[in-house]
Amino acid sequence: IQSKLPDVGTTIFTVMSQLAAEHGAINLSQGFPDFDAPAGLVARVHHHMSQGMNQYAPMQGVPRLRESIARKTADLYQARVDPETEITVTAGATEALYAAITAVVQPGDEVIVLEPAYDSYVPAIQLSGGVPRFVPLTFPDYRVDWNRVRDTLNGRTRMIILNSPHNPSGTVLDEADMAALTALCADSDLLILSDEVYEHIIFDGRPHQSMLRHPALAARSFVVSSFGKTYHTTGWKTGYCIAPAPLSAEFRKIHQFLTFTANTPVQLAYADYMEDQAHYAALARFYQAKRDLFRELIGPSRFKPLPCAGTYFQVLDYSAITDAPDTAFARRLTTETGVAAIPPSVFHHDGQDHKALRFCFAKQDQTLARAAEILCRL
Amino acid sequence: IQSKLPDVGTTIFTVMSQLAAEHGAINLSQGFPDFDAPAGLVARVHHHMSQGMNQYAPMQGVPRLRESIARKTADLYQARVDPETEITVTAGATEALYAAITAVVQPGDEVIVLEPAYDSYVPAIQLSGGVPRFVPLTFPDYRVDWNRVRDTLNGRTRMIILNSPHNPSGTVLDEADMAALTALCADSDLLILSDEVYEHIIFDGRPHQSMLRHPALAARSFVVSSFGKTYHTTGWKTGYCIAPAPLSAEFRKIHQFLTFTANTPVQLAYADYMEDQAHYAALARFYQAKRDLFRELIGPSRFKPLPCAGTYFQVLDYSAITDAPDTAFARRLTTETGVAAIPPSVFHHDGQDHKALRFCFAKQDQTLARAAEILCRL
Ligand SMILES: CSCCC(=O)C(=O)O
Ligand SMILES: CSCCC(=O)C(=O)O
Repeated sequence: IQSKLPDVGTTIFTVMSQLAAEHGAINLSQGFPDFDAPAGLVARVHHHMSQGMNQYAPMQGVPRLRESIARKTADLYQARVDPETEITVTAGATEALYAAITAVVQPGDEVIVLEPAYDSYVPAIQLSGGVPRFVPLTFPDYRVDWNRVRDTLNGRTRMIILNSPHNPSGTVLDEADMAALTALCADSDLLILSDEVYEHIIFDGRPHQSMLRHPALAARSFVVSSFGKTYHTTGWKTGYCIAPAPLSAEFRKIHQFLTFTANTPVQLAYADYMEDQAHYAALARFYQAKRDLFRELIGPSRFKPLPCAGTYFQVLDYSAITDAPDTAFARRLTTETGVAAIPPSVFHHDGQDHKALRFCFAKQDQTLARAAEILCRL
Repeated sequence: IQSKLPDVGTTIFTVMSQLAAEHGAINLSQGFPDFDAPAGLVARVHHHMSQGMNQYAPMQGVPRLRESIARKTADLYQARVDPETEITVTAGATEALYAAITAVVQPGDEVIVLEPAYDSYVPAIQLSGGVPRFVPLTFPDYRVDWNRVRDTLNGRTRMIILNSPHNPSGTVLDEADMAALTALCADSDLLILSDEVYEHIIFDGRPHQSMLRHPALAARSFVVSSFGKTYHTTGWKTGYCIAPAPLSAEFRKIHQFLTFTANTPVQLAYADYMEDQAHYAALARFYQAKRDLFRELIGPSRFKPLPCAGTYFQVLDYSAITDAPDTAFARRLTTETGVAAIPPSVFHHDGQDHKALRFCFAKQDQTLARAAEILCRL
């Protein structure tokens, strides 16, 4: 059988988590918390399951949840989105990313991908017959070089994929980026796929530059977010996509045949829990404290932390320790040293390697302390 | 924006369920029970959620659940499948169907689709650039005409999609069908996508002809099943795919970028609950009683029930009542008469209409009685 994705193996997240488990390493690779979901949220799921809410939700998602998302979007980004026609709940942000790409990318269409890029973007583009056009973020500050983006643009360019806060680098788009993007869009009919799953995890008082804040950009954007990252429930696999009605209509045509709909009692529980804004309002502070702790703990080590403005990932430069490729070092660190991390070269089409690893700090303070202690010994 | 699926609207299931809700009609359209999930199963979800099992499962699914599926498959179909390399848990059977098609269908490949066909098959084929080749089931007995299938086969044929017990018709494949299929396969390298989501809902003592029972067929099959249909939990969106290791490897490449994985506590709960085989062992009898009740209740009406050997759907011929197209009659029946059903013409690429509607009998006896009373008045 001829592979549709000959260059793809098992996703790095499953590979590293499995390796960590096999070797009893502290798992700072795949992005998920090692502390628990809010008990109040778990209780809401049980409530709805006990009330018999266990059958199909509507294809576009439970109405109450779409209304909650619309309210949040109005509160935080001063954007009016119509829950009836512009919001679709999905089986996780991964499904939303895949559906958005599949909805609009035709064979031969080009999609601009800024690298390092989350590993699901490119296969989704390729499965639609699209062509990824790679533009590297600058190093070591991981900014978008808008001139390079503009040079890549041509008559076949269909979409650009943005991701802020950015995984794996932890950088965020700022006002200047939004101005550059707006200028770029003014001259083209480019669509935007904006991966904003870390929208609530942004530090030092910076505002999140959601596309939804910028009407001219929102008008051409699929904005994807996730409940898993926000509510410490990555295993519940629920996310959503906001897009103007004509884009949402095409998105839903795909979504309805991809998964049809997302888990009903989980959707209802999130709708309940979102009414209290306290949780996501506190999230930035919560993770900022973890970022600061991890950076402090790692201070005495030979790892050099790069800037981290958002997400729950910290990139550490290891060039003072070894010049091994990041994949080899990540493997050794997991199997011999006992701490698992993600090698960002897997997020580059050409395997580019900056002698740095990505560590997830969505962990209990004691986990971070144990990991840092080991890392400081290197 | 140019649509990738110009001929597709909102799936009939969401359209009819919404129409039923708006008009207060008894909803026998979309297939889901109006009785509840087993309390013991709900309790297991709560248990695992309370134990903190709320983060990502491995991409291929929770190991314990894959082992339970392998045990069931051995017990029921005398098939040995390797949970490590041959079973993948998905976000519902819909995702599994989509991933299997996407994994193997290349642009220009032909896929044989027997009509009436579930509405997600053809869009998935088209999104991979494949070409559906339609072969009608015979009418009114909805059998496969294997000669017509053979005539459709050619050098570009990649796959055939089978579905037994069959939605919407309720027919099942028998030994003769399996022999014909085996003969067909002997001459070709045809792959099989076997939609077996109603595997446990088969009546009158007939055996379910899973591809897994037939090693020569299993060796080239993606077998898709669903927990939602079996455990009265359609809203939990969990299913799975069994395929030989090389096919599963390609399947997983797609699955990991489509949804990554399915809900963790739900997977663990199903694993627990499957240990007791009593539930699925009793399912056929449970639904057979409902089929018999519904057919008896409808006896005095002008609807004529077609044979129903499996699934929880009963097709009723309405030609004695009206010669309206089935879509128009389904709409009127919902909005004016007060019972919603599915018009099977939506499962035909050319809208073929046999003056029959599909009614879901996965309902409490009193719901069936109320619906039948209304239908008998027509
Ligand atoms: C879908 S598993 C990967 C989780 C994640 O987003 C990450 O670790 O980057
Ligand atoms: C995915 S909603 C449709 C449920 C179903 O399988 C049916 O009604 O045929």
